[in-house]
Amino acid sequence: MKMQKAAYMRGIDKMVIKEIPVPEIGDNEVLVHLEYVGICGSDVHYFHSGSCGAYKVDLEKDFMLGHECAGIVEKVGANVKSLKEGDKVALEPGITCGKCEFCKTGHYNLCPDVVFLATPPVQGCYEEYIAFPEDMCFKLPDNMSTEEGALIEPLSVGFYAANQGEVQTGDTVVILGAGCIGLVTLLACKAHGAGTVIVSDVVNARLEKAKELGADYVVNGGNGDVLKEIEKLTNGRGADVVFETAGSPVTIAQTPFIVRRGGTITLVGISSQEEISFNFAQIMDKEAQIKSVFRYRNIYPKAIAAVASGAIDVKKIVTHRFELDNIQEAFDEAVNNKTDLVKAVIKI
Amino acid sequence: MKMQKAAYMRGIDKMVIKEIPVPEIGDNEVLVHLEYVGICGSDVHYFHSGSCGAYKVDLEKDFMLGHECAGIVEKVGANVKSLKEGDKVALEPGITCGKCEFCKTGHYNLCPDVVFLATPPVQGCYEEYIAFPEDMCFKLPDNMSTEEGALIEPLSVGFYAANQGEVQTGDTVVILGAGCIGLVTLLACKAHGAGTVIVSDVVNARLEKAKELGADYVVNGGNGDVLKEIEKLTNGRGADVVFETAGSPVTIAQTPFIVRRGGTITLVGISSQEEISFNFAQIMDKEAQIKSVFRYRNIYPKAIAAVASGAIDVKKIVTHRFELDNIQEAFDEAVNNKTDLVKAVIKI
Amino acid sequence: MKMQKAAYMRGIDKMVIKEIPVPEIGDNEVLVHLEYVGICGSDVHYFHSGSCGAYKVDLEKDFMLGHECAGIVEKVGANVKSLKEGDKVALEPGITCGKCEFCKTGHYNLCPDVVFLATPPVQGCYEEYIAFPEDMCFKLPDNMSTEEGALIEPLSVGFYAANQGEVQTGDTVVILGAGCIGLVTLLACKAHGAGTVIVSDVVNARLEKAKELGADYVVNGGNGDVLKEIEKLTNGRGADVVFETAGSPVTIAQTPFIVRRGGTITLVGISSQEEISFNFAQIMDKEAQIKSVFRYRNIYPKAIAAVASGAIDVKKIVTHRFELDNIQEAFDEAVNNKTDLVKAVIKI
Amino acid sequence: MKMQKAAYMRGIDKMVIKEIPVPEIGDNEVLVHLEYVGICGSDVHYFHSGSCGAYKVDLEKDFMLGHECAGIVEKVGANVKSLKEGDKVALEPGITCGKCEFCKTGHYNLCPDVVFLATPPVQGCYEEYIAFPEDMCFKLPDNMSTEEGALIEPLSVGFYAANQGEVQTGDTVVILGAGCIGLVTLLACKAHGAGTVIVSDVVNARLEKAKELGADYVVNGGNGDVLKEIEKLTNGRGADVVFETAGSPVTIAQTPFIVRRGGTITLVGISSQEEISFNFAQIMDKEAQIKSVFRYRNIYPKAIAAVASGAIDVKKIVTHRFELDNIQEAFDEAVNNKTDLVKAVIKI
Repeated sequence: MKMQKAAYMRGIDKMVIKEIPVPEIGDNEVLVHLEYVGICGSDVHYFHSGSCGAYKVDLEKDFMLGHECAGIVEKVGANVKSLKEGDKVALEPGITCGKCEFCKTGHYNLCPDVVFLATPPVQGCYEEYIAFPEDMCFKLPDNMSTEEGALIEPLSVGFYAANQGEVQTGDTVVILGAGCIGLVTLLACKAHGAGTVIVSDVVNARLEKAKELGADYVVNGGNGDVLKEIEKLTNGRGADVVFETAGSPVTIAQTPFIVRRGGTITLVGISSQEEISFNFAQIMDKEAQIKSVFRYRNIYPKAIAAVASGAIDVKKIVTHRFELDNIQEAFDEAVNNKTDLVKAVIKI
Repeated sequence: MKMQKAAYMRGIDKMVIKEIPVPEIGDNEVLVHLEYVGICGSDVHYFHSGSCGAYKVDLEKDFMLGHECAGIVEKVGANVKSLKEGDKVALEPGITCGKCEFCKTGHYNLCPDVVFLATPPVQGCYEEYIAFPEDMCFKLPDNMSTEEGALIEPLSVGFYAANQGEVQTGDTVVILGAGCIGLVTLLACKAHGAGTVIVSDVVNARLEKAKELGADYVVNGGNGDVLKEIEKLTNGRGADVVFETAGSPVTIAQTPFIVRRGGTITLVGISSQEEISFNFAQIMDKEAQIKSVFRYRNIYPKAIAAVASGAIDVKKIVTHRFELDNIQEAFDEAVNNKTDLVKAVIKI
Repeated sequence: MKMQKAAYMRGIDKMVIKEIPVPEIGDNEVLVHLEYVGICGSDVHYFHSGSCGAYKVDLEKDFMLGHECAGIVEKVGANVKSLKEGDKVALEPGITCGKCEFCKTGHYNLCPDVVFLATPPVQGCYEEYIAFPEDMCFKLPDNMSTEEGALIEPLSVGFYAANQGEVQTGDTVVILGAGCIGLVTLLACKAHGAGTVIVSDVVNARLEKAKELGADYVVNGGNGDVLKEIEKLTNGRGADVVFETAGSPVTIAQTPFIVRRGGTITLVGISSQEEISFNFAQIMDKEAQIKSVFRYRNIYPKAIAAVASGAIDVKKIVTHRFELDNIQEAFDEAVNNKTDLVKAVIKI
Repeated sequence: MKMQKAAYMRGIDKMVIKEIPVPEIGDNEVLVHLEYVGICGSDVHYFHSGSCGAYKVDLEKDFMLGHECAGIVEKVGANVKSLKEGDKVALEPGITCGKCEFCKTGHYNLCPDVVFLATPPVQGCYEEYIAFPEDMCFKLPDNMSTEEGALIEPLSVGFYAANQGEVQTGDTVVILGAGCIGLVTLLACKAHGAGTVIVSDVVNARLEKAKELGADYVVNGGNGDVLKEIEKLTNGRGADVVFETAGSPVTIAQTPFIVRRGGTITLVGISSQEEISFNFAQIMDKEAQIKSVFRYRNIYPKAIAAVASGAIDVKKIVTHRFELDNIQEAFDEAVNNKTDLVKAVIKI
């Protein structure tokens, strides 16, 4: 039996490397030799607190994190037609049933029976090899690296947010929060043709990164009155689309005052506080709409095309790179560095 | 100079009838001999409290209420082509600029320069004659009465709500609130082909009216757990579209728990409380969207067609009828009768 | 081994009844005791000519037709959760892959790997029992019969046409062709809230049926100038939506002259002639759009809800009923009766 | 009375410069000192043949062409609020009624009462000064020149085409025709985030220009089989969106074979031939939709934002520049140079 290296969390804040068997593939699967796996905010939550939202890691057992991944096809199952050995692929980590109301209508992100990598009890992919369904492996063109491939996953959240927010070419967009999700939303909005993008955060280092990635204006939410500053930057009209990516009750509550009459608020960040005090009078008066984002759906092919064409330079979000053997160090850094770490990736 | 009768409010809770001149018409206007003018909830607010939302009546002066109206064309201006003497018409009471961003994109209900009948300082139309722009007078077909014509205005709010909520044929719909707006929303949803409509209110007489108008199920919000009852009635799936028409913080806060995964909440009722505690975690988890309704736009021709074809029997919402001379009695009843008065109309 | 009766075509224009085994069910399947199976135009084409469009029956072998069906669940597979013995169900006859681009985006009707009943070489269902996947069997409410259930299939084509044509409540609609598909389109348009529906055909008996089913006006295309008559009926404005259901080059070519400026043409009928001369100048000048219909997708639950709620009285399209033993007679009638046969069903 | 220079066509192929009065402005108008006016294909048609589509110049009289224009505000009317002396503005050349069904629903491009510059009998703007309604003058930001401002008009056609075609970020797009309209469609598609853009034409010089402006692949329609080449370039899948900008019956007829299953054809080019033989069987089989483009609507603010943000480098389409005094030479060149003239502009 062929063996491989894999990294598991063993209780809070602790990583171990183990030897496990390379999996067998089914007829509709491919074996992917993973090359890059990113570290997501949810991975950090599980690692540092044992849970993320309603999901909890069983701390009695080792658990493998990681779901932002790409690699090279090593072997293909008997029925596989669209892929062959040597193809570079990005893996979409949520396998859905294909049969429920949500799957049939194209909203498969809402499938109640989804199996999503690194969402307990489903294991993740900080490992060398994974067996995965052909239809969830998206071939990368020659001019894309597998590092870029692994970044398609976080990019997809921002890309889907821009779709849900119906960003139109020439729109004025405000993004609240310049963490990883805020920044991929920024990249996606620019690729969707947004005219003016204003980004707000309270950490200057993040705002610097936002400017580097294409923000037209940045506003530090800690200095004076954000709402007034945004009003000025939009000539009193407000934003066509506002994205809330910080997940903070404060920024969620700001959105009705930033959106223009008839505009769209898109909620992307997940707040730890369930109930939030919100000014619905503003919403009614402006006839604004509120959209939300749960993971993503049908984004991989479009996001890959946008990166391949140069419309999105997704590599720029990577600020830290680690070897699999140093995954403990990688996660420690992800836990502690709240300023200039945007995205860390593990090279397998 | 030809004179006419007109009813004005003179301070709180008081109506007077006065003689005023019949207006002259401009080249693009028609003179309409009004036959029916409804009493809107906003009229009652002004009458009883002097204000509605942010708008205030100047109580030093007489003010004419009324904006739900229809009548017969008596004279047409020099440039008028689409109407002639004797035509029955319903009047859309908001005249917009035609030039701003909102007017040009078809969202004229958001025009900041709108002139809306009976919204202070613009006078209303409890009078015999009104001069009105040709393009805001919609011809009624032979098989519609001017009483039905006057009801097109309140119907338009429910009709637009059904449009904003994107009700699809066969959808399961929940309507919170069975006042006039809840009931016209019900009529509109049925005309849009809604499969199952569930209406909730705390007044049984209103729920009876809802059943009469086509509700499949009614739920008294005062008895036990509304959310559980709706969950049962929808087989645990929730509603495709939830309409909030009561404008109560309680019912607004219920909406995230009633809407299905991927469904739509449509806010129609205006709350007197600006900030409301709302469970956004549910919204995010379900990827629900929230739409809102500010008056209506481009609804009159469609609503008239729906009434003319028999798809909507709008007359059924009229519970009380008064002569113009008895307008004081009409408004007193509208102020005091909170159970079985749905819509009162004034016959001019 | 339990046996059942089944009807097969044996060469052109010939039906035979055979005994075949009742099928075994898989873990995700249910065994349905069929009660009604309709006769579709495509069934008649195969029966009378051996082919339909690009599909050909292998006339060397017996072939079972039939795909419009409903019945009672007799047995459920090990994994089946949503259905139980005794449930009435309508079967959606196209089983798709769930994994291709089209399935994932909700356009499963375009799945290249669909397995569709009675589309050679896939056998149909003129038989007593069928094993079918749980997710393709839609439960009927108590107030619906299995005859109505079998009619959901043809209704779905018209229902989907109304969706594709984006019929809005109050719209003026023209339907070209009053055969079965024209009539189910009519039913669906009325349920979608269409204000005025005008139906055109060259057979008066069909136009009578259209009036019975709710058409506001009917126009015999053989008498004088159809286009002028429709222009008059729409006050010179044209139709918001035009449906072409006859599949004739003549009626397809009429559509640009019937649609209003900015309106929608929806092509439903399939022409035997591939290339058609078409006035694109009219399309460009009116900025009209052209939609088309390939089978249907995600319609069954909505169509069932619309029938259950009474918005659509689908039974009315059934003009002929036959027992399974008389299926030869049924098909002979379907081949020969081109006037008053709208829909024939086989009672199993 | 202040006088100005203006260029008129005097019969076929002949331009004259005349002195005419500078117009007075109304209260809602501004006086614009024009700086650049482009030469549109329609201008060239009128100049060289006396007509364009159904519109004919009265050749007995001098007629002023030109409608792609921008300049500096010189004076503002009494009611003008949004503009002031010295502002750079681009003029949207179609003034609509604001009151018809089309204007009210935001489809003002279909207004039957539009007054459009240089569409007979309405005079154009090859002149120094024009009085124009405030709401049709769009302020340019500091970083845009008035030459770019004049190009907003042709860009708007391509921009609107991309909107009508619903180009999504990452889409594969095919553009048939690389004349001026094909090229602005290309620019707009890239700004909308199109992943792969393939342009086809029969003139190599135009294809070179297309590559310079961002086309990923170009295909010469004269060499071998275009359809096969496009099929290969799209891996057999076809294009998400096909734009026909050449207005040729040949290319219009190609579109059903280029579009992918479920994709969109957008007709932009106007054919001189009204009836075209078209393969509707392909459309039906693929469930493709066909959109069309009549001028544009609500595009100027978005297009200006896209140019200002750098998403579109519209200057690159200008291949020829002339002074107003040399307008005869400019039009002669426009008539004769069918290869490398994309857009000529007149500096006033």
